[in-house]
Amino acid sequence: MTSSVTERGARRPPSTVDDYRREARSMLPRAMWNSLCGDEGELGWETSANNLAAFKATKLRPRVLVDVSRLSLQTTVLGREIGLPVLIAPSGTQQRWHRDGEVASARAAARAGVVMSLSSASTYSIEEVAAAGADLWLQLYVMRNRRVTEHLVRRAEDAGYRALVLTVDRPGGSATPELDPRFAGATSEPDYDFDAEWTHAPALQEDRILKNFRDLDVDGTRFRRPADLTAQIEDSLTWKDLEWLRGLTPLPLVLKGIQNGDDVRLAREHGLEAVVVSNHGGVVVRDARGTMEVLPEAVDAAAGALEVYLDGGVRSGDDVLKALAVGAQAVLVGRAQLWGLTVGGEDGVLDVLEIIRRELHHAMKLCGVADVRRVPRDLVVR
Amino acid sequence: MTSSVTERGARRPPSTVDDYRREARSMLPRAMWNSLCGDEGELGWETSANNLAAFKATKLRPRVLVDVSRLSLQTTVLGREIGLPVLIAPSGTQQRWHRDGEVASARAAARAGVVMSLSSASTYSIEEVAAAGADLWLQLYVMRNRRVTEHLVRRAEDAGYRALVLTVDRPGGSATPELDPRFAGATSEPDYDFDAEWTHAPALQEDRILKNFRDLDVDGTRFRRPADLTAQIEDSLTWKDLEWLRGLTPLPLVLKGIQNGDDVRLAREHGLEAVVVSNHGGVVVRDARGTMEVLPEAVDAAAGALEVYLDGGVRSGDDVLKALAVGAQAVLVGRAQLWGLTVGGEDGVLDVLEIIRRELHHAMKLCGVADVRRVPRDLVVR
Amino acid sequence: MTSSVTERGARRPPSTVDDYRREARSMLPRAMWNSLCGDEGELGWETSANNLAAFKATKLRPRVLVDVSRLSLQTTVLGREIGLPVLIAPSGTQQRWHRDGEVASARAAARAGVVMSLSSASTYSIEEVAAAGADLWLQLYVMRNRRVTEHLVRRAEDAGYRALVLTVDRPGGSATPELDPRFAGATSEPDYDFDAEWTHAPALQEDRILKNFRDLDVDGTRFRRPADLTAQIEDSLTWKDLEWLRGLTPLPLVLKGIQNGDDVRLAREHGLEAVVVSNHGGVVVRDARGTMEVLPEAVDAAAGALEVYLDGGVRSGDDVLKALAVGAQAVLVGRAQLWGLTVGGEDGVLDVLEIIRRELHHAMKLCGVADVRRVPRDLVVR
Amino acid sequence: MTSSVTERGARRPPSTVDDYRREARSMLPRAMWNSLCGDEGELGWETSANNLAAFKATKLRPRVLVDVSRLSLQTTVLGREIGLPVLIAPSGTQQRWHRDGEVASARAAARAGVVMSLSSASTYSIEEVAAAGADLWLQLYVMRNRRVTEHLVRRAEDAGYRALVLTVDRPGGSATPELDPRFAGATSEPDYDFDAEWTHAPALQEDRILKNFRDLDVDGTRFRRPADLTAQIEDSLTWKDLEWLRGLTPLPLVLKGIQNGDDVRLAREHGLEAVVVSNHGGVVVRDARGTMEVLPEAVDAAAGALEVYLDGGVRSGDDVLKALAVGAQAVLVGRAQLWGLTVGGEDGVLDVLEIIRRELHHAMKLCGVADVRRVPRDLVVR
Repeated sequence: MTSSVTERGARRPPSTVDDYRREARSMLPRAMWNSLCGDEGELGWETSANNLAAFKATKLRPRVLVDVSRLSLQTTVLGREIGLPVLIAPSGTQQRWHRDGEVASARAAARAGVVMSLSSASTYSIEEVAAAGADLWLQLYVMRNRRVTEHLVRRAEDAGYRALVLTVDRPGGSATPELDPRFAGATSEPDYDFDAEWTHAPALQEDRILKNFRDLDVDGTRFRRPADLTAQIEDSLTWKDLEWLRGLTPLPLVLKGIQNGDDVRLAREHGLEAVVVSNHGGVVVRDARGTMEVLPEAVDAAAGALEVYLDGGVRSGDDVLKALAVGAQAVLVGRAQLWGLTVGGEDGVLDVLEIIRRELHHAMKLCGVADVRRVPRDLVVR
Repeated sequence: MTSSVTERGARRPPSTVDDYRREARSMLPRAMWNSLCGDEGELGWETSANNLAAFKATKLRPRVLVDVSRLSLQTTVLGREIGLPVLIAPSGTQQRWHRDGEVASARAAARAGVVMSLSSASTYSIEEVAAAGADLWLQLYVMRNRRVTEHLVRRAEDAGYRALVLTVDRPGGSATPELDPRFAGATSEPDYDFDAEWTHAPALQEDRILKNFRDLDVDGTRFRRPADLTAQIEDSLTWKDLEWLRGLTPLPLVLKGIQNGDDVRLAREHGLEAVVVSNHGGVVVRDARGTMEVLPEAVDAAAGALEVYLDGGVRSGDDVLKALAVGAQAVLVGRAQLWGLTVGGEDGVLDVLEIIRRELHHAMKLCGVADVRRVPRDLVVR
Repeated sequence: MTSSVTERGARRPPSTVDDYRREARSMLPRAMWNSLCGDEGELGWETSANNLAAFKATKLRPRVLVDVSRLSLQTTVLGREIGLPVLIAPSGTQQRWHRDGEVASARAAARAGVVMSLSSASTYSIEEVAAAGADLWLQLYVMRNRRVTEHLVRRAEDAGYRALVLTVDRPGGSATPELDPRFAGATSEPDYDFDAEWTHAPALQEDRILKNFRDLDVDGTRFRRPADLTAQIEDSLTWKDLEWLRGLTPLPLVLKGIQNGDDVRLAREHGLEAVVVSNHGGVVVRDARGTMEVLPEAVDAAAGALEVYLDGGVRSGDDVLKALAVGAQAVLVGRAQLWGLTVGGEDGVLDVLEIIRRELHHAMKLCGVADVRRVPRDLVVR
Repeated sequence: MTSSVTERGARRPPSTVDDYRREARSMLPRAMWNSLCGDEGELGWETSANNLAAFKATKLRPRVLVDVSRLSLQTTVLGREIGLPVLIAPSGTQQRWHRDGEVASARAAARAGVVMSLSSASTYSIEEVAAAGADLWLQLYVMRNRRVTEHLVRRAEDAGYRALVLTVDRPGGSATPELDPRFAGATSEPDYDFDAEWTHAPALQEDRILKNFRDLDVDGTRFRRPADLTAQIEDSLTWKDLEWLRGLTPLPLVLKGIQNGDDVRLAREHGLEAVVVSNHGGVVVRDARGTMEVLPEAVDAAAGALEVYLDGGVRSGDDVLKALAVGAQAVLVGRAQLWGLTVGGEDGVLDVLEIIRRELHHAMKLCGVADVRRVPRDLVVR
């Protein structure tokens, strides 16, 4: 799986992210595919199509006669070196895609030298994933019961996580295909078996209460049904409340789900370390802009005072280069990584990262870019 | 019908307006569908496709970290509170869609707490609909015989209607699929049975003279054939003539069918209370602009001195939010409501309104908008 | 044929220009259709698709509360009244479409009160067509042998033609599907019978030397093969040469085939009476602009000093209104008229003109335009 | 093959470049087609679709009443007269398309009076191709072992080549369908026989070491496998290194692979004689701009101090005219020529050039352009 050299006469292994998409799609029942990620542009996924279209509309303007004999793909995020300006996005419940779930993803991240953002809605626990040895950040929501959030923060600190990623684009929960009526079209098969999504997670199959919350009892808050989790996501959170979180921990704070330059400006004013331009993979707001449409105003508003990452629509190394040209410090990959996970577990995730690395290397060479930390703004045009 | 919770294994009830469209379309003979509303973009309906495209091209720019724990969907139209910035549009002859026609629509409006605009070309009479207990406005045309119009105004006053909606985009009548040769393509089936459209209205099936005009005799003007009605629509009406109407009644006057900022300016100068940006559902002028293309110049011209509503192309709560962002005070739903009526009568209309309310609530939460009366202009971009 | 009232249960007669297109297309062998007019956008006809797209992209901005009880569709061209701002375009060899050819077209023009431009490449002679009693203009080319042109001018004067239309967009001939290799794709069927195109013109079937040239002998110039005709079209003609033509006759001169504002400016400086913005139906230059893309700069350059007509892409009365709004004095219809001719001969042409008249009347009423001579510029937007 | 006159009843020979494309495509196994040139827009060929789209979006603005009785299609490149502003692009390994490979192309170039750029990766040797009698330029890369490059330059000088074309858009090689994983999708058939691509080149079939490199031994650098060739392409080359090449030979130097006005500016500053705006046929960088999108800024930056050619997307004489209007001195044809080669060898290449010449002549006549050296800038608009 990790090799993509074509051997004559043999069935060709996946060699692009799109190969992985097709392969993963063919492995899953259609309704499950629709429920987990869907085809871009279909009802409920309109915004994910905007993500792809915005990348497509961003065209490259290569330079020639630049010395590209030594390329550097290394950069830093939050001050730490990474081998590739790519992070694994925080996708929940990864055992629905593959039995090894987040552990496989984290092991691949460690091998590839990239940071993984673990979703707090993971099927393996914070501690189990930490054992994989990757550089980890913990994604979380501020819960109505702040003690639950505090509990997660403490566990992240204890397990050696290096940053917190606060998702702010789903106040009050909702927006998951299973719960959101907008997605009913995708999952409308009368005999659709939602349980099938959980066959790789036998321990969770019955109650689906995720590992990090299963045996939790914080001041009486307990989680008995999946809906209890999303219902706990705070919807009165404001910028002022971030101070509470900052006071709680020395871990750097990354704000995820930004779609507006004005919010980047506020993030800067509130001293955030970084923001993630993201529309939650196109799953929450219909007809929102593609992430590459948002990135320019986000980078302008950041004005170099905080790091800007892009999450949503990255399908190739060329896409990474485009985002860096506009000013992203790094990008997050969600679907691409999950397709790799589905097809090949840990090796699949690693191969997806290697494909992207190879493509980025290739695109840099051909565009006359020697260092990912110095991609000129006018390398792209829209 | 009013529930849209998906139960496993059961046939899924409609959970989006588009579900209702598909369901209604499957219930009606194709030629009748073509005659009543048609598929957007087909011959004769080009402008209705522009309505949809203009909404699609208007993209959202969500904000984060806004307290959205308490959302207000209440607003006012013409000074009266409504529970949702949505009005039922004045669609004629609703018994062609469902036997309960306008009475069902009005009952649903009452239950949902929204205003219904009754078309004077209704299959139930002004008084019958009033009995449903909804907040009602009466839509009418100025007739060549002004006494007919005056007669309708008096009946509206007596029946407790709260405003008059004057449609001004069909001078001289015409532009109905049955009468307009442009639509002949849609109704070209040799054995198409126009009578079938009236099976739900046995009392009207023979002569099709609508209830409000059936036994009318005003200074000798009588209505014996459907064409007598449209032929009575005045085509020499000018802004000056509005003074006559204003002198006739203290009811507020809403001008419906505006597609041009200059006309909003004139409406303001003539002291109108409100205008409806509308292209009559895309049925009258071919290749007119989508309503969301017109709205910005209409709002600018209104300059806060009169209310601007949008009618045409609204298919979701997200669309409502977009129109409010541009400056509409409320929107009207026509096709969406009629599809609900077709599928489920009163409950169907109510469910469509509830779907839109739920989607609007959802979109507000996700976009950081707490109050429909304060949707920032820069929430959308085109 | 002249009636388009739909009778229940009966096969519907054509009621739009597009109905006529479909009907004509079904009546002709496909290869003949491809050779005569083709489907817009196919190889060789790219520019005709641009004509349609440019009309489609021009959207209407209707006005309300204008007195439209009395509409005037009358205007003048070259100082003479016409009942409709529509002219019949000069299309050659009309007997290939219908046995009555140009005579049928001229009779319909007379009945409809519009001007017909007769192509000098007609299958009926200048004199035969004159007998139909229509207001006629003669289209011609300046031939290499100027005496041939002079001969045609004299015949036009003698037969009472009221203007000359000089086509200037085919220097040196070429650009006919039969002769132009670009169109070979359209006529590539191995057993395609070009003779079949001439079955309605028995007198011409053998040698295809058109009536106006058949027995001509001007200083030794004779026409024995079709190619002799196009080969005679002068290709060294310049603005200076127009003086010769102007000195030859008092008939007003209309320049046809303008695609550039600069050429309109030159036409104005050379005292031309009118120009026709036209790309020869999209048949000559590939990837030229649609006529509605050219019209604005043509009208600006004319600056009211000469009349500007538009030819190419007009398929409805709405299109006529759009062209008038941009500043055309009138439009020419080519394909639409030929489809009418094919389907119904004289009555077919008349019915097409009546459809366009009815649609124009309808569009004016709905857009608040009372007079074709006063269509406001801002009625349309692109 | 060289005749495109349609004879009635006979199978029509190709009369457009697109006819040749279709014919060539039908002659080659699909996988081989995909490997050699692919269909525009498919995975890996996105940029070639941008080339076509950019030509399509460039519309012509014809002029009238220009004396076009004598047209001149002659121009100069690097000071030498050519009969047509078209050059044969340097495409490698032409025996994969036809057994006569580059020799056939060069003979056709000689007959058509155009310059041929020979790829150094040719299947016939520099000397064998020189014998065909055409005006030749040699395309080459700067190799890591500079002596290999010097060796090629000397052979070019000795064989009478008139210029060097230095390709700079593939630093470090790669970007060939066979080697590049991005193209694996196109060549994914399990039993695809890459050897079949070489059946026309029996002498090369086994080792595929191209003629110019087969028996080379320069300071120990030898070529044993195809990958040795691409691996030799220098990737540390900068503008400074060009001085070495310039010092090596008096032959004029053409820089090929420019996609950015800034690089044209640098080429001017470094005294280059000419640049070729090219994206390597859309094969190297994905989502790069179409060549006609790049040309304007390239011409502006050249400021008349060096010649600018365009390579990529030219499919007709109309396209040539468009590129000249924007300011190209001449264009290169790659795929078009290879399709001609595939279908008819030397005669096929010549016929393709004649088609383009005829179309260019035709377009000039119809657009009022008498001389390819004086095409006005405003003849086109985007």
